[in-house]
Amino acid sequence: MAKTSSGRYFEDFRIGDVIRHAVPRTVTDGDVALYTALYGPRFAVQSSDAFARAIGYPRAPIDDLLLFHIVFGKTVPDISLNAVANLGYAEARFLAAVYPGDTLTATSEVIGLKENSSRRTGVVYVRSAGWRQDGTKVLEYVRWVMVNKRDEAARPTGELVPELAPSLDPALLGDGCPRIDVAAWDFGLSGAPYRFDDFEIGEKIDHVDGMTVQEAEHQLATRLYQNTAKVHFNQFMQVRTRVGRRLIYGGHVISLARALSYNGLANVFHVAGINSGTHVSPLFAGDTVFAWSEVLDRAALPGRSDVGALRLRLVATKDRVCEDHPYRIGHDYEPGVILDLDYWALIPR
Amino acid sequence: MAKTSSGRYFEDFRIGDVIRHAVPRTVTDGDVALYTALYGPRFAVQSSDAFARAIGYPRAPIDDLLLFHIVFGKTVPDISLNAVANLGYAEARFLAAVYPGDTLTATSEVIGLKENSSRRTGVVYVRSAGWRQDGTKVLEYVRWVMVNKRDEAARPTGELVPELAPSLDPALLGDGCPRIDVAAWDFGLSGAPYRFDDFEIGEKIDHVDGMTVQEAEHQLATRLYQNTAKVHFNQFMQVRTRVGRRLIYGGHVISLARALSYNGLANVFHVAGINSGTHVSPLFAGDTVFAWSEVLDRAALPGRSDVGALRLRLVATKDRVCEDHPYRIGHDYEPGVILDLDYWALIPR
Amino acid sequence: MAKTSSGRYFEDFRIGDVIRHAVPRTVTDGDVALYTALYGPRFAVQSSDAFARAIGYPRAPIDDLLLFHIVFGKTVPDISLNAVANLGYAEARFLAAVYPGDTLTATSEVIGLKENSSRRTGVVYVRSAGWRQDGTKVLEYVRWVMVNKRDEAARPTGELVPELAPSLDPALLGDGCPRIDVAAWDFGLSGAPYRFDDFEIGEKIDHVDGMTVQEAEHQLATRLYQNTAKVHFNQFMQVRTRVGRRLIYGGHVISLARALSYNGLANVFHVAGINSGTHVSPLFAGDTVFAWSEVLDRAALPGRSDVGALRLRLVATKDRVCEDHPYRIGHDYEPGVILDLDYWALIPR
Repeated sequence: MAKTSSGRYFEDFRIGDVIRHAVPRTVTDGDVALYTALYGPRFAVQSSDAFARAIGYPRAPIDDLLLFHIVFGKTVPDISLNAVANLGYAEARFLAAVYPGDTLTATSEVIGLKENSSRRTGVVYVRSAGWRQDGTKVLEYVRWVMVNKRDEAARPTGELVPELAPSLDPALLGDGCPRIDVAAWDFGLSGAPYRFDDFEIGEKIDHVDGMTVQEAEHQLATRLYQNTAKVHFNQFMQVRTRVGRRLIYGGHVISLARALSYNGLANVFHVAGINSGTHVSPLFAGDTVFAWSEVLDRAALPGRSDVGALRLRLVATKDRVCEDHPYRIGHDYEPGVILDLDYWALIPR
Repeated sequence: MAKTSSGRYFEDFRIGDVIRHAVPRTVTDGDVALYTALYGPRFAVQSSDAFARAIGYPRAPIDDLLLFHIVFGKTVPDISLNAVANLGYAEARFLAAVYPGDTLTATSEVIGLKENSSRRTGVVYVRSAGWRQDGTKVLEYVRWVMVNKRDEAARPTGELVPELAPSLDPALLGDGCPRIDVAAWDFGLSGAPYRFDDFEIGEKIDHVDGMTVQEAEHQLATRLYQNTAKVHFNQFMQVRTRVGRRLIYGGHVISLARALSYNGLANVFHVAGINSGTHVSPLFAGDTVFAWSEVLDRAALPGRSDVGALRLRLVATKDRVCEDHPYRIGHDYEPGVILDLDYWALIPR
Repeated sequence: MAKTSSGRYFEDFRIGDVIRHAVPRTVTDGDVALYTALYGPRFAVQSSDAFARAIGYPRAPIDDLLLFHIVFGKTVPDISLNAVANLGYAEARFLAAVYPGDTLTATSEVIGLKENSSRRTGVVYVRSAGWRQDGTKVLEYVRWVMVNKRDEAARPTGELVPELAPSLDPALLGDGCPRIDVAAWDFGLSGAPYRFDDFEIGEKIDHVDGMTVQEAEHQLATRLYQNTAKVHFNQFMQVRTRVGRRLIYGGHVISLARALSYNGLANVFHVAGINSGTHVSPLFAGDTVFAWSEVLDRAALPGRSDVGALRLRLVATKDRVCEDHPYRIGHDYEPGVILDLDYWALIPR
């Protein structure tokens, strides 16, 4: 069908291609309320206009991950409609606060290609960006994804595996956060007394709570992000696959884990960047998600005394509590681990 | 119980009766976000204030079908609380764009009555209308519905089957769409290059994607529309009926199919009118909806060079892909077909 | 884990303690739309800005119970994270109308403690309050809850069972409702002609309709209220308990019953106070909720001719219709009864 998009296959991508994605999307208070209903986040800056204003924001910004999911959703029809698996993220930077009323668009540049030895699939690397209506870049990230070939005999248009920074330089982290007035930060209202200096490298925090996921919930979320990947919605098709069930959008897991992390990281209010992220194993409806965090690093931001950056590993599990901080045994992830996310977040000093 | 409404029965309706429906409803950004989460529509005009403003709207209008469902919901307690089946729609016209902040009310005029041969039910025809707070009529449509009699022995108050136009005159279609600046329409952002002249009569488009429906989703939708029909919500009652399950509001199917149709009809941005609609078969939770469209006609709008009208047949199926465009075999619908909707929609020229 | 809150145990509470709860929360149109989607309320004042303005509100206020749930949710991490059961409510007063854009915070004062004879649990009585960003108290209520002890050997810090009014004095009821212009109240739009004088003490009203609840629905609701009680969300944990399932937040039942009560109480537009409330039995996903009301009392409000107060008993059942008004047999509740709520509500005179 000429008018119906069937998405790009591996051999359709060319290094250097810049793709403008449809569809522009105005974010509203309605999206924010749904995000709250879907994950239950309680970070005070995003929850309260009054709290946000007191410390220097014009109003409560939207959750950084809501921004991420909306931008990601726009890239799906062009990048990953024929994807087998979303392999990883890197070099994600949140570059400006986004508020209800802002309209978001997205672009992606193809920065790498690598055919797999099977010749049936290849890995596509893109650097995607989210833009505000005024032309400000609000988000950028690298993502790589395994994409089917239309024709096994087709040759890749190029081959290049991009070098990606294992961790973002802290000097690159502050743009998404206005200078805040820490004296006006009410630690009683935010829910915990702990600041930058209260966290130590190597510290591990079990976030305790568990959240069971229903089909309706992840479908509502994924549609809210206008993410059209079939595997999340089409049970008629999925029942004919090996897993037999709808796959839950990986970003849903990230948002659940981040919301759970409030219990222990209440003042870690802004995701400034993502160093790397891996969906270790799929989540299905009926599973219960738990999470724990480890402080990997601490960094001052150049020229800023208001906030510092914590580098955190956020690990999510399914149907497994995290009091023993399950992660890896040798090179392999422990059973039950579903997410391994390495990110930088800001916290008052 | 005197204070509890048990709804009108067939013998309670009189031709010429005009019913003002409760309850007024202010539409908000919250409703729009829920509509996005429930169906995943991606039409750029409704998705983006920036896109809508660029072409001449004051901001993004709400989805035409959201307007339809809210008005329809208001009519239920007075028209179809004792309905056996919603039989059809005709002559639906969307008369003005509606924006968040507008308050909607509804009225219905009884325009036809016909007792069924069983004497236990009859068909009620109403012309319903939706109104904005300033007195502007924003929607009108005819609907007929099979309604139980309270008393089998009761005589109908009249008998008349109204003549309904098989298709709306294109001259009646443009009121719901302001004159737009097509030069400012960004076909990259809207998601497809196809305009009015790119569609041919007889062209068939499979919308490819499938969407599985959960109980929670259709219940959230139907309550959002303040539609009180018991069959959608009351499993305790439904389990005692022949179907044994909650019935999904027919409008939910229309919205799902319309959202799926974006893949192939990305620029078909405004439902201007509905010529006829039939719910061929019920949808249940767990079923997966697919859809395809056929271009039935094309028409210019008098005095307008900005947009043209496509007359489209939108067919939805359950648990059946649409690559072979399932529709009818002789007079009967093919197995799996659940919706047959004939509508006019606008697209840039 | 020091940074993770594990909540207070019975021996941690002291009479006279005043607890400021995290997290401030700005209410928006998005929350209102979700509330509509979750329960389907149709009270005209809350549904329509135009209706609300006509009678003297600046715009539609949020539903009183949405306010209640948000304030309640804030108290959970400090009061009832280790609760065994929520035992009751009393002396709840809605003190000011709340509108989208308002930011809510909450406090609680410990007003009573009583160890149970088992020595493993105790009852904690708190007077909680909700506050608007400008320092106005918008809600206050007493709640008592059975809380686990951390250490069975620990002695309670005090013992006091507060005296609670069996019913609020009607003179205390009008603060949450501005003086309204009853001449501008459109009884056609509100959905019923009945005013204050049309209700008699002892009158019983079956609300007829039933609503089946899904897991996704109550989870969305409870997260929207940022209520973190584990029992509502963590099936992995619940499956190891006696009930084996997630418990539905009791407030969800109150909101369902209140929304159902529109059919019979369409003009009873404002919950002014709650005299007492008991969750008789838990609700689970898959159950269908029904409700009926009895008029317990009628009262004029001092100095006000616009509205009067009805004292109502709202009884909710599960999987049991209410045409016979099920309530108690002797001291015991009839099978199927899940909620016994005694409240004051306002209605035009």
